[in-house]
Amino acid sequence: MERITIIGLGLIGGSLGLALKAAKLKDIEIVGYDKDPLAASEARRLRVVDKTESALQKAVRDARLVIIATPIVAVRGVMEELAGELRENCVVTDTASTKAIVMEWASELLPATVSFVGGHPMAGKETAGVQNAEAKLFAGKPYCIIPAPDASEGAVRVVTGIVHLIGARPFFIDADEHDRYVAAVSHLPLVVSTALFTLVRSSPAWPELSALASSGFLDVTRLASTDADLSHGICLTNRESVLHWLERMVAELGRYRELLQQGQEEELFKAFARAQLDRDTYVAAGPAVREPAAAGELPTSGEQLAALLVGERLMRRVKDIGKLLEEKKEGGGSQGGEGGSQR
Amino acid sequence: MERITIIGLGLIGGSLGLALKAAKLKDIEIVGYDKDPLAASEARRLRVVDKTESALQKAVRDARLVIIATPIVAVRGVMEELAGELRENCVVTDTASTKAIVMEWASELLPATVSFVGGHPMAGKETAGVQNAEAKLFAGKPYCIIPAPDASEGAVRVVTGIVHLIGARPFFIDADEHDRYVAAVSHLPLVVSTALFTLVRSSPAWPELSALASSGFLDVTRLASTDADLSHGICLTNRESVLHWLERMVAELGRYRELLQQGQEEELFKAFARAQLDRDTYVAAGPAVREPAAAGELPTSGEQLAALLVGERLMRRVKDIGKLLEEKKEGGGSQGGEGGSQR
Repeated sequence: MERITIIGLGLIGGSLGLALKAAKLKDIEIVGYDKDPLAASEARRLRVVDKTESALQKAVRDARLVIIATPIVAVRGVMEELAGELRENCVVTDTASTKAIVMEWASELLPATVSFVGGHPMAGKETAGVQNAEAKLFAGKPYCIIPAPDASEGAVRVVTGIVHLIGARPFFIDADEHDRYVAAVSHLPLVVSTALFTLVRSSPAWPELSALASSGFLDVTRLASTDADLSHGICLTNRESVLHWLERMVAELGRYRELLQQGQEEELFKAFARAQLDRDTYVAAGPAVREPAAAGELPTSGEQLAALLVGERLMRRVKDIGKLLEEKKEGGGSQGGEGGSQR
Repeated sequence: MERITIIGLGLIGGSLGLALKAAKLKDIEIVGYDKDPLAASEARRLRVVDKTESALQKAVRDARLVIIATPIVAVRGVMEELAGELRENCVVTDTASTKAIVMEWASELLPATVSFVGGHPMAGKETAGVQNAEAKLFAGKPYCIIPAPDASEGAVRVVTGIVHLIGARPFFIDADEHDRYVAAVSHLPLVVSTALFTLVRSSPAWPELSALASSGFLDVTRLASTDADLSHGICLTNRESVLHWLERMVAELGRYRELLQQGQEEELFKAFARAQLDRDTYVAAGPAVREPAAAGELPTSGEQLAALLVGERLMRRVKDIGKLLEEKKEGGGSQGGEGGSQR
């Protein structure tokens, strides 16, 4: 029996647990830990893990794979605590929204006998907590994979295998690039959405405004409901990139302001028409380019995962699951899954 | 047989037609007109109206109620064209997103023998056109009603009755207030959403960004897919209010930028936590105050609508439909309807 340990049983940790359990990997137990005993007990009740441990050290002992799914501000402390407890060749990964700083912490704190492979599932919803965990949270979503320079090839394969198993799309990327990119498509929308809600909510006319607001307002401000710990952690750990995009957003809004002020009707229409066309194209066709898929490089990651974790005898089963997932992905299309499952 | 004429058979006009037809008002025919013969033929195919006319003048002749549901930039021209054709006591309403300018046009162009009652359904979706029309588009949504100073009481009751019939919530408001308020909850989110999408889309890294973007980006940028004619018309006709809120939005983003730059961690956390709490409260509890509902003032608007349109003999039927709609509204809750039906 090999052990996968999930540290931090919130929305992401809980959903990972459910997704891994749904894969019914034989001879692998999913162990959970949360410093909040209530979250741990809720995780047990919802069966998102096979069992929980009340001590972090005990939870990670002998684990083949450790997934740190805590808020990012807690990741450093967790690494410090578990560093001395990890078995040789243990694979450690995380799910934090910022990667450069996590890679630094891992390099500084984890022993050379283990491999760190950073991870970031591009999935979530505005309702936090293990009670909102879903096995399908990651289905069709990009999942960033950032191996440490000294991570073993086997460790990369383990994490890639996990990403495949939960139905996500592996996206290999450099930590600095990751932080700049997610600042644009995730962190900036978070700040913009929060600022918009806060601005309108603070108006003395809020009673009337809230009565008039409809689905458009609710959609654009949805990210204002993001867990504040998460939002805060993102801004603190990816400050430079968020600031960069925030400045550009202010400039972009200024461009619309000028077009309005100067009555540049034609330019204004062009701006709206271009946005409509480009977004409709994006929604219909998906990403401008497909990411360098792992499918070519690591065609048998499911097999390798099983082989690496519990040996050759489970390869066939994992391979079958992998095929099923591939078929589902091809059948459903990634955009449909992305738009449909999040409300 | 009394006639209700809908001018402009797009998403809103088409949905109004479907909603009115769903109410199965006896002895009332729903006539449609669109200057685009293709839209008119599509409207016939989808049966969103009972019939269409190929000439505007013929479509409105003898109509008891005329609903102008064209893009706002076309409203003035439509009023000019139909002014000489309206029967005495005709009720004219519209669905445009900006109201002060429409009220001015009506006052200037429509004859004193008819009553104008401005309208604005706070409903929509990013897919325009009659082919996306839905009978339930307005269910549970606010519907602004702005009577002209000289509109008859009966005309106000007709429009209020229509709003009730299609399942929307009447919201009586002054035209200037309306324009300031919707600038905050509808027009500003539109510009912000469009600017955010345009900014990210214009990055040289768009291929990677688009592959990484997930549901959060799609939600916050949803309004960038708004019909460009609509967005453009809104900005041109409600320019001052949009500019006002745009300036405030730039200032609000500047506040977040400062908190980040100055490393004011606690303040930053408070800002996110406050937004999360306030939005969650809003989503769970609905508007801060209920609008001054028509229920008290106009308890029998359904009856009066029927009485006004086709006489007492149809009162019972309309009353029954009104009851059904009320029961549905009470059962479903307005927030659930708002969040659920728009994707």
